[in-house]
Amino acid sequence: MIDGKLGATLGMEVQGGKKFEDYKASGETYEKMRKGFYEPHERLKDMDLDGIDAQVLFSNTGTFRLLNIEDPELQVACMAAYNDFLSEFCAADPQRLIGVAMISADDVAAAVREIQRVASLPGIRGVVMPLYPRCNPLNSANYDPLWAAAQDANLPLHVHQGTGDPRFSRFLNAPPEQNLRGELMATMSDGSLGNYAALSKIIFGGVLERFPRLKFVSVEGNIGWLGYFLERADRTYRRHRYWTRFDLPMLPSEYFHRQVYATFIEDRVGVRIRDFIGIDNLMWSSDYPHTDTTWPNSRKYVEEMFKDVPAIETAKIVCGNARRLYALAS
Amino acid sequence: MIDGKLGATLGMEVQGGKKFEDYKASGETYEKMRKGFYEPHERLKDMDLDGIDAQVLFSNTGTFRLLNIEDPELQVACMAAYNDFLSEFCAADPQRLIGVAMISADDVAAAVREIQRVASLPGIRGVVMPLYPRCNPLNSANYDPLWAAAQDANLPLHVHQGTGDPRFSRFLNAPPEQNLRGELMATMSDGSLGNYAALSKIIFGGVLERFPRLKFVSVEGNIGWLGYFLERADRTYRRHRYWTRFDLPMLPSEYFHRQVYATFIEDRVGVRIRDFIGIDNLMWSSDYPHTDTTWPNSRKYVEEMFKDVPAIETAKIVCGNARRLYALAS
Repeated sequence: MIDGKLGATLGMEVQGGKKFEDYKASGETYEKMRKGFYEPHERLKDMDLDGIDAQVLFSNTGTFRLLNIEDPELQVACMAAYNDFLSEFCAADPQRLIGVAMISADDVAAAVREIQRVASLPGIRGVVMPLYPRCNPLNSANYDPLWAAAQDANLPLHVHQGTGDPRFSRFLNAPPEQNLRGELMATMSDGSLGNYAALSKIIFGGVLERFPRLKFVSVEGNIGWLGYFLERADRTYRRHRYWTRFDLPMLPSEYFHRQVYATFIEDRVGVRIRDFIGIDNLMWSSDYPHTDTTWPNSRKYVEEMFKDVPAIETAKIVCGNARRLYALAS
Repeated sequence: MIDGKLGATLGMEVQGGKKFEDYKASGETYEKMRKGFYEPHERLKDMDLDGIDAQVLFSNTGTFRLLNIEDPELQVACMAAYNDFLSEFCAADPQRLIGVAMISADDVAAAVREIQRVASLPGIRGVVMPLYPRCNPLNSANYDPLWAAAQDANLPLHVHQGTGDPRFSRFLNAPPEQNLRGELMATMSDGSLGNYAALSKIIFGGVLERFPRLKFVSVEGNIGWLGYFLERADRTYRRHRYWTRFDLPMLPSEYFHRQVYATFIEDRVGVRIRDFIGIDNLMWSSDYPHTDTTWPNSRKYVEEMFKDVPAIETAKIVCGNARRLYALAS
């Protein structure tokens, strides 16, 4: 219940381990659910089962709905409560459970205060803001205090596929009518478009130029499109910066390689063109316990996806890059 | 002048052959322009210069503005006038100049009539509709008569990057103010997002299932993102079709391989992953005389891009696939 209204019942966020045929969009109950989905010590056991050393934890499709709360004070209070809960959840093993605190982008001053607050909360090692902020696009100059706060707090700033996507509102509570099923499928299939547009805005908007120590992470957007993204962005820069009088001093791909990370789950194309994207910028993830998860067969998926990849590169992408970004013990 | 208002002066559509440093967004005059940009016999000479056997001709950023005309009768009349002009232009050599007639998507019945009319116009071998129609999205069932008309007329249906993109309206006449330059660059860099979303809607909307002989062409959207697009679409289909009760009988990639073509200009990533996308579905283009053109050095660009590609595959992508699609003489 959010602000007196039923946000949604649990569904897509808790399908891990089921057959695809048995996936449900809503109506799951805690009684029937794996304890690892909500209890941290059981979570650690589920990670052991799947060969996962550490997990980076994001709010789910339920808590993302906090982004839609109209009353700004209530929204700030709900997010702070969620962030406190997350810190407590990670306390079960702060080297294996890595919390990413949630902030709204509606009130930049409030977001800055929350970034400064969570920076000293145990277990919190990053912040996530909406991919589609409802007030201003990501290249808006009024976010500068927010970028500065994340940079100063040394907290990587994440954007997560789907968060704030206005297209999802019509699909929230139940499987859609016949004529909307194709649109729902298209929306699930092309969710990376939001991550693509966000990176475009961040890089061409000069955010990474103005905040050179800010780390920016594209989450659950996969990576197979990133080779094209970088090639095209550099070409646009080389061809069009004169007549547009565009004045960033570095190539878009140089900002990307210096400051951007991108996560993926299953992505054979992305793994194949990893050298175009950047071996040091990619992080595999299991998406547990959401519908796209590879749990409990992640080892098999990873082995299959990386079968033609040198071990040193695989080690970076499934472990080393995340360890460096989140400053984990080795 | 459109409907009494200045649409724009010539600029981006006529920069072919210039140094990037000399590109201009507007203010070009016929006196200073290469004759090949507007005169068909001179055009053929420019093609000879660049080693181009045949060119597929689209309306430019000027005529795309016909899509914004409010009065439906005026819009239909302007498009018909453009299509007649195009047919006359192609008469200079109908084997080398391939006309793609323009239709609006605002009035589907009028679009159907225009498709039927241009089907018998000499030189016209396809139709192009807006990538971002202003009334209904591309998966709307009310376009079914339009798909049927194109299929029956055996005219491939094209969507062209940028056409109808509401984001471009703020950049139309002049280089933008300082704070919009980055947004203009981002918009040019990520134009393929529109082609991506359009293919998603067409495939998951069941258009290619309902119209199995319709040929659908993504124009100027490049191809490096298509490997990821297809992998992700198939994965979404396999994972999510049960709970959504989605009922297309074939994989998204199977519809793509049967009915979709995609054009590109410079795209090293796309050429590298061509086998993921489909060797028979890709068509290189020179984009003459628009700003992204490789003219008059297309041979050099092609040689460089295809240096690691077997000759039989290169021949399909730079020639054979287009010859088959547009039924050109060999």
